[in-house]
Amino acid sequence: MLIVKKFGGTSVGDKERIFNVARRCVEEYRKGNDVIVVLSAMGKTTDELIAKAMDISPNPPKREMDMLLTTGEQVSAALMAMAIDSMGVPAVSLNGFQVAMHTTRVYGNARLKRVDTDRIMHELEIRRIVIVTGFQGVNKYDNYTTLGRGGSDTTAVALAAALHADACEIYTDVDGVYTADPRIVPNARKLKEITYDEMLDLATLGAGVLHNRSVEMAKKYGVQLVVRSSLNDNEGTILKEETSVERMLISGVALDRNTARISVIGLKDEPGMAFKLFNMLARENVNVDVILQSIGRDNTKDISFTVARSEADEAVEILTKSKSRIGATDISCNKTVAKVSIVGAGMMSNPGVAAKMFEALYNENININMISTSEIRVTVLIHEKDAERAMNAVHDAFGLEE
Amino acid sequence: MLIVKKFGGTSVGDKERIFNVARRCVEEYRKGNDVIVVLSAMGKTTDELIAKAMDISPNPPKREMDMLLTTGEQVSAALMAMAIDSMGVPAVSLNGFQVAMHTTRVYGNARLKRVDTDRIMHELEIRRIVIVTGFQGVNKYDNYTTLGRGGSDTTAVALAAALHADACEIYTDVDGVYTADPRIVPNARKLKEITYDEMLDLATLGAGVLHNRSVEMAKKYGVQLVVRSSLNDNEGTILKEETSVERMLISGVALDRNTARISVIGLKDEPGMAFKLFNMLARENVNVDVILQSIGRDNTKDISFTVARSEADEAVEILTKSKSRIGATDISCNKTVAKVSIVGAGMMSNPGVAAKMFEALYNENININMISTSEIRVTVLIHEKDAERAMNAVHDAFGLEE
Repeated sequence: MLIVKKFGGTSVGDKERIFNVARRCVEEYRKGNDVIVVLSAMGKTTDELIAKAMDISPNPPKREMDMLLTTGEQVSAALMAMAIDSMGVPAVSLNGFQVAMHTTRVYGNARLKRVDTDRIMHELEIRRIVIVTGFQGVNKYDNYTTLGRGGSDTTAVALAAALHADACEIYTDVDGVYTADPRIVPNARKLKEITYDEMLDLATLGAGVLHNRSVEMAKKYGVQLVVRSSLNDNEGTILKEETSVERMLISGVALDRNTARISVIGLKDEPGMAFKLFNMLARENVNVDVILQSIGRDNTKDISFTVARSEADEAVEILTKSKSRIGATDISCNKTVAKVSIVGAGMMSNPGVAAKMFEALYNENININMISTSEIRVTVLIHEKDAERAMNAVHDAFGLEE
Repeated sequence: MLIVKKFGGTSVGDKERIFNVARRCVEEYRKGNDVIVVLSAMGKTTDELIAKAMDISPNPPKREMDMLLTTGEQVSAALMAMAIDSMGVPAVSLNGFQVAMHTTRVYGNARLKRVDTDRIMHELEIRRIVIVTGFQGVNKYDNYTTLGRGGSDTTAVALAAALHADACEIYTDVDGVYTADPRIVPNARKLKEITYDEMLDLATLGAGVLHNRSVEMAKKYGVQLVVRSSLNDNEGTILKEETSVERMLISGVALDRNTARISVIGLKDEPGMAFKLFNMLARENVNVDVILQSIGRDNTKDISFTVARSEADEAVEILTKSKSRIGATDISCNKTVAKVSIVGAGMMSNPGVAAKMFEALYNENININMISTSEIRVTVLIHEKDAERAMNAVHDAFGLEE
């Protein structure tokens, strides 16, 4: 069996944890398996490197930023190779260039294009544990690139896909994927299985266990992922195309507090108005989330949408500049909102799911601000103060604790 | 003009020093010159990385050690590129693989074999300052290697040779090469020029400004080196094949305290005895320095030699094991000795130089233990307590302060 294991920064944060990971890898190896380990930078290393760069320049060239940041994983990979070697098992660390992990040109947020397998295959054949630096690659100019948030997960999935690995295990500091955040919903339950699509919606909606890009890649290449804890031997959650367990109505409830609602009031009721408005925001790289358009008075319309809270001020500024051009009478921003979502492949064939969610919120006297739905998701925007109550109410209503 | 500038770890030890180096490079660039900057790792970074490795394993694989250590220069190179960029001049950092600096296979102490110039030439053509990580390269397996002590100097000289640079400037924390260590000989004088050969002997004998390997390479490829301070604009010392100034009798006085004398007494007077003895030591990687053989009593001979003080105990142990086989009656070790040497291309044509040195020591009542000479060097072994007095006496005797 060929097994890819990915460990995040906290899992290799100090000597003790490094040896904890090394032991897991050595155990796997001693079963006769081929083992590839994908590592992030140790603990706060990346933050420290960023701080060093910011101390030199408030706006460092992205190419040099990636040159700087890629050293973080190289350090953890080399130390891991030393730890495994000291346990009597041969190991070799490979960075993004040595593998090589070919990416697009862009710095800071590159995408993987192609993974060379020759070097890794050779190292596995001579029975070494192969440690690969996550989060990084090289572009066609032989410059280092980084993959952006969740990049190490993507590295692991890409390697598993390219090498046709038998398993791809993502080790984190939680036991797996839960029906809701256990810190908010005390009786949340760990899921045994979840589909890629459900996970994608959960990730987008703030569940935060896995980054979207890695899940998308796993779905695309059919890589079965396991999310499990690096601190214990609990079973974890399996991500796959179709879950084999009896289809549940919904898989989880997600909360996203990092949101703000912006309302543009009194727009002229002309074709292309929405295009103009969102094109302005897109040009300035403001990502818009839920959009709602309603008819206003006197042949006008109102458009409301949500953005990440950190981008709200910028969005308001952009729109205010063009207020007269788009003919808006007012632009308002509400930062005390939160998104609560239910996700589940089962809801496709069950039309009453959204209504059941709304009922649960009504019973708790929680006002709904905006609604957005997809095939496997229902999202409501509510007041932030109601978020935790809403989570628990919805979780209970769908019987997720069972 | 194409100018290679090399800065050591202390010269890039903090933000202020990084900008100090950046300013020097930008000034050179604004004169219209092409600038290549070779950097070591910041301050104590290399030591810290070594400590991290030792914490994981007392005997880490050398391949992984180099993987770990090469991150040090990558960090300083990236930060330097950011600093130069923030001053409005385009810059790019390149590591050992990106250049590429091709080395021999061996880890921890590789030798440069070949330097690719395409990438650097391209970056210079588009008018960027090119920052190259010193001390590192890649071997034929695409693994990172390090060049051992003084490796960044070697990187700079190799680049200057491969690119036919007009100047190669080695910036250190001293003003240049002195006739003696100014901390010991207060009236030591900075040399304007020195030949490669003189510098090689001075380096070997403990002057420590430049590492031998870089001087050897500069001599081989005719790269004119300048050693100067990164902290001021003083002129520094020029290293070349022939000095143009009127040949001085000697160029400097060097002191090496890191030495110990081992004496093997009463060896059988048979052919091959010296070979056996030094072959044993060579097999265990003990480097022998000055060797003296003398006739003992009753058809025996005594052999004395010096080794680095840190290797003295090991050498004694090796010899003691074979004491009966080589027929030695006694093995003794003296660690309270020091080597004082005079170096000068001028002494080749002046037979009285050694005598003048011995006279100076006699006048100070300093006893000479062993003597060794080469064409441009005279070395004496004396008691360590006499070392500083000997340095000053010899320095005065040859009028080096003038």
